[in-house]
Amino acid sequence: MSQPAYTTLEHAFARRAKLNSAMGKLAWDQRVMMPPGGAADRGEELATLSALAHETIAGQEVADALHALDGANLSDVEAANVREMRRLHAHAAAVPSDLIAAKETAVAACEMAWRDARLSGDFQGLLPIWRPVLNCTREIAAAKQEALGVRAYEALMDTFDPGRKLDQVTALFDDVEPFLRNALPRALENQNRTHDPVLPADHFSVEDQRRLARVLMEAVGYDFRYGRLDDTTHPFSVGSTGDARVTSRWDEKDFTSGLMAVLHETGHALYTLGGHPERYWQPVGGHRGMTIHESQSLFLEVQIGRSRAFTKFWGALAREAFGGEGIGWHAENLFGWVTRVTPGFIRVDADALTYPLHIILRSQLEQALIAGELDAGDVPDAWDEGMQDLLGIRPPDLTRGCLQDIHWYAGAFGYFPSYSLGAMAAAQLFEAAEQAMPALHDRLAQGDVAPVIEWLRIYVHEQGCLYTPDGLLEFATGRPLDTVAFKAHIQRRYLQ
Amino acid sequence: MSQPAYTTLEHAFARRAKLNSAMGKLAWDQRVMMPPGGAADRGEELATLSALAHETIAGQEVADALHALDGANLSDVEAANVREMRRLHAHAAAVPSDLIAAKETAVAACEMAWRDARLSGDFQGLLPIWRPVLNCTREIAAAKQEALGVRAYEALMDTFDPGRKLDQVTALFDDVEPFLRNALPRALENQNRTHDPVLPADHFSVEDQRRLARVLMEAVGYDFRYGRLDDTTHPFSVGSTGDARVTSRWDEKDFTSGLMAVLHETGHALYTLGGHPERYWQPVGGHRGMTIHESQSLFLEVQIGRSRAFTKFWGALAREAFGGEGIGWHAENLFGWVTRVTPGFIRVDADALTYPLHIILRSQLEQALIAGELDAGDVPDAWDEGMQDLLGIRPPDLTRGCLQDIHWYAGAFGYFPSYSLGAMAAAQLFEAAEQAMPALHDRLAQGDVAPVIEWLRIYVHEQGCLYTPDGLLEFATGRPLDTVAFKAHIQRRYLQ
Repeated sequence: MSQPAYTTLEHAFARRAKLNSAMGKLAWDQRVMMPPGGAADRGEELATLSALAHETIAGQEVADALHALDGANLSDVEAANVREMRRLHAHAAAVPSDLIAAKETAVAACEMAWRDARLSGDFQGLLPIWRPVLNCTREIAAAKQEALGVRAYEALMDTFDPGRKLDQVTALFDDVEPFLRNALPRALENQNRTHDPVLPADHFSVEDQRRLARVLMEAVGYDFRYGRLDDTTHPFSVGSTGDARVTSRWDEKDFTSGLMAVLHETGHALYTLGGHPERYWQPVGGHRGMTIHESQSLFLEVQIGRSRAFTKFWGALAREAFGGEGIGWHAENLFGWVTRVTPGFIRVDADALTYPLHIILRSQLEQALIAGELDAGDVPDAWDEGMQDLLGIRPPDLTRGCLQDIHWYAGAFGYFPSYSLGAMAAAQLFEAAEQAMPALHDRLAQGDVAPVIEWLRIYVHEQGCLYTPDGLLEFATGRPLDTVAFKAHIQRRYLQ
Repeated sequence: MSQPAYTTLEHAFARRAKLNSAMGKLAWDQRVMMPPGGAADRGEELATLSALAHETIAGQEVADALHALDGANLSDVEAANVREMRRLHAHAAAVPSDLIAAKETAVAACEMAWRDARLSGDFQGLLPIWRPVLNCTREIAAAKQEALGVRAYEALMDTFDPGRKLDQVTALFDDVEPFLRNALPRALENQNRTHDPVLPADHFSVEDQRRLARVLMEAVGYDFRYGRLDDTTHPFSVGSTGDARVTSRWDEKDFTSGLMAVLHETGHALYTLGGHPERYWQPVGGHRGMTIHESQSLFLEVQIGRSRAFTKFWGALAREAFGGEGIGWHAENLFGWVTRVTPGFIRVDADALTYPLHIILRSQLEQALIAGELDAGDVPDAWDEGMQDLLGIRPPDLTRGCLQDIHWYAGAFGYFPSYSLGAMAAAQLFEAAEQAMPALHDRLAQGDVAPVIEWLRIYVHEQGCLYTPDGLLEFATGRPLDTVAFKAHIQRRYLQ
C-alpha cells in the first residue's frame, strides 16, 4: 500500500496510539507512585496529552485522507484499519471542542465531590454538581448519534464496545435476567445443603501473598521482563505491548481476594502483551473494546481461576506459600470459598451469579437517564427499588446504593454493560477452548495453562481489531455473542 | 494583558511545558520502574511527545504571534516571558525537521553502541557510528548560529545555559585553570601533613542509608508530599513544581557517597519545587538553565553538605542511623573524608578541586570538534594528552578516558561547561547568603537549613527566567558570574 492518504492516516493514528500509551503509563504512576502533591501537575499533563490525541485525528487532514480512501483497493488488514480509523475519527470529529472541555470541567468537579458524597451519602449535595455531567453527556450522545448513525445510548456504548447494538444488549439481558433470578435461590439452597467453605487460616501476610501472586502470574505465562506487579487500592492493569503492568491489593484475612484480582488483571495484561507486534500502534492492532477486554480478565479469573480444576493447582501453591496445614487447604473447600454466592449491595464484591443483576440495574437506569426518561434526582429511589426487585435486598444507605460506583459521576455512561457482556464472552470463549482442547481441565489441575493462553493469543489477542467484537467471537467460537455458554457455566458451577 | 497574540503564545508554550513535564515523569519511570521489555514502547512514546513539543512552538502561528508583539507594551514578567519564547522559538524553528530526525536516528544508534564501547574500550568500532552524530550536531549548530546571531558553539551552549558567551567561558576557565593547577599540589601536600581521614565502619546497610537520606532530605526542607526517593544507577532528579523526585544509589562500603548524591539531587529538586506557582507552565517560570540548576545542586551538596559546619549535623545523624561509635564518627574526620582530594580519571568521581580541570579538558576538545579543528578520530590521543597536562595522569584505557561520559555520544555538545560554571555560581551564591546571614555556619552546624533555603527560594527559585542567568546572579549576588567566590572557597577549604 503506497497511497499517500493511507500513510497520512497511519502517521496520525500511530501518534494518537503513542500518546494514549504514554497516558496509560502516566495514569499508572498517578495511582501507584505519585506523591499527593503531584496531582494538579499530573492533571495538566494528562489533559494536554488527551487534547493532542483528540486533535491528531479529529481534523480536516484526517477527514480528507479518509475521504480519499473511499472505495480504495485495500488488503484485509488495511481495510479493517481504515474501518477503525473512520469510527475513531467520527467519534472525535462529532463533538465540538468546547463541549468536550465543558464535560471535562464538569467531570473534574463532580469526581471530586463524589469522593466526599460516597462517604457521607449526601446525594442531594452532589446532585447539582452531577447534573452538568449528565447534560454534557446527553449533548455528546446527541452529537455522536448523528455522526455515527446510531441511537444516542448506542453512541455512548460504541466508545467502549464498538458497534454494539442496544437491541442486542436488551435481548441478551432479557434472556439472562429471569435465568439468574431463578438460579439465585437454587444456588443458595445448594450452598446451604453442603458444608460451609472456610478460610484455611486467619492471617495471610502481605509479603507471602505478593510472592504467591508472582508465582501464579508466571505459571499462567506472565513474563516479568514485560511488566510489574505493584500495590494499589483498586486493582487495574495498564500498559503497552512490551510493558503491561498489573496492580493488586492484599487482604490479610482472605488471600483469595487479592489472588483472584491478580488473575483478573493478569488476564487484561496478557491481552495487551499478546497484541500483534507489527500492528500495535495502528487501530487495527489495538484491543477490541471493553467487552472483549473484560472477557480476557474473566477468562483467567472466573473461567480458569475459580474453576474446580485450577483451584487444585493454585490451592497447592498457596498452601506451600503460607506453610498451611489442615482441611481448609483442601481444593474442594477452597473451590467452595471462591465460588460462594452472596447477594450483596456492592457490585465489585459480587459473585459471578449475582454480578449481572447489578449490571442490568445500572444498564436500565443509565438508558433511562440518557433518554431523559429518568431524572437524575430520582436515581436513589429507582436504584433501591431495582435492588429490591432484582436481588431482594434494599441498600441501607446510598453509600451502598447509587453512590458506590464512580462511572456515572465521572461521565462514563454506556460502560456498565461490557462487564457482563464480557462475562458471557469469557464463558463462550472458554467453551470453545474446551472443545479445542479435550483434556483442558486435567491440564488446568496441573497448572499447565500455556496451551489455553496460546489459544487465546491466536484467536483473540493477535487479532486486534481485524474483526468487530462479535466478528471476533464468531472467528474464535463460531458464533456471535450469546448467553448459551454463560448459562451453561452458571448451571454447571452453581446448580448441580 | 489581553493581546490575542500573547494569549496564543501562552497557550502554545504551556502545552510545550506540560509535554516536557510528562516526558520528565516518563523518563523517571524509564530509569526507575520500567521493565526491560518496555524500552522500545517508551522510546516511541517519548519520541512522539518530543516531536509534538517541538511542533507546538516551531510553527508559523507562533512566529506570527511573536512578530505581532514587536514593540508591544508589556509588563516586566510578560516581557521576560516573550524574550524566552523568542529564544525557544528560534531554536525550534532554526533546524529543519529532517535534520532533527537524522540526529535522533544517529544518536539512538550511537548511544546503544557507546554502552558496549565504553566497556570494551573499542573506540575505533564506535567511530563510524559517532561521526554522523557529530556531523548532524555541526549542521544544527550552523543552522542555529544564523538564527540566534551567535557563534556555532555558543548556539549549542545556548540550549543549556541561555545567552552564555564563549569569550566569557574562556575567560573564566583561563582564570581558574592556573589557579587550580597551582592549588592541586598544595592541597595534596596539606592532606599528607594531616591524619588520613577514614570511614568510620566497613559496612553500612542500604536500608539504614535510605532512612538516613530521608531524614536529611527532610532536614533540608524537602517535603515528601511533593516527591519521592528511589534507587537508581546514576542519581538524578526530575519533576515539576508539585512533584520533584530524587533518586540515588547506595555504596555499602561508603555511605557518604550516596548521601552526598542525595543532597546534590535534592538541591535540583528544591529548585524545581520552588518555582513560581503562577508562572510554572510559562517559559518565564521555568528553570534558568543548567548552570543555575547545577548551582542549586552544588550549593546543597558542596557548599552546605561538605562544609565543616554542616558535617557536624549530618555526621551526628549518620552516627545515630548506623548505631556507630568511635573516633571515625568525629565530624572533623568525616569532613576530611568528604573533602579529600584525589586526582583521578573519572569526572563523576572527582572532588571539587579537580572537577573543573576535567571540564576544561572536555570544553576545549568539544569546541575544537564543533569548529572542525579536531577530527573525531583524534579524540583519544587529545584526551590522554590533556589529562597528562592538566592532572598529571594518563588514563590506562579509553574506558577511563574519552569513552567515560555519554554526552558526546548522545549528541550533547556545549553541556559540559555548565557543570563548572554551576560550581562557580554555587560559591558566589553561598558567599552572598553568608553575607545576608552572618550566623549561617552556626545555623548549619545545628541543621538549621531552612533560612538559607528560603533565601535561595526568593533569590533564585522563584525568579525563574525573569532574568538571564547572569542577570539572576547579579540580582542575587550583586554581580554576574565570576571566579572570586569559587577561588576563595577552594582556598578556604583546601589550602589553609
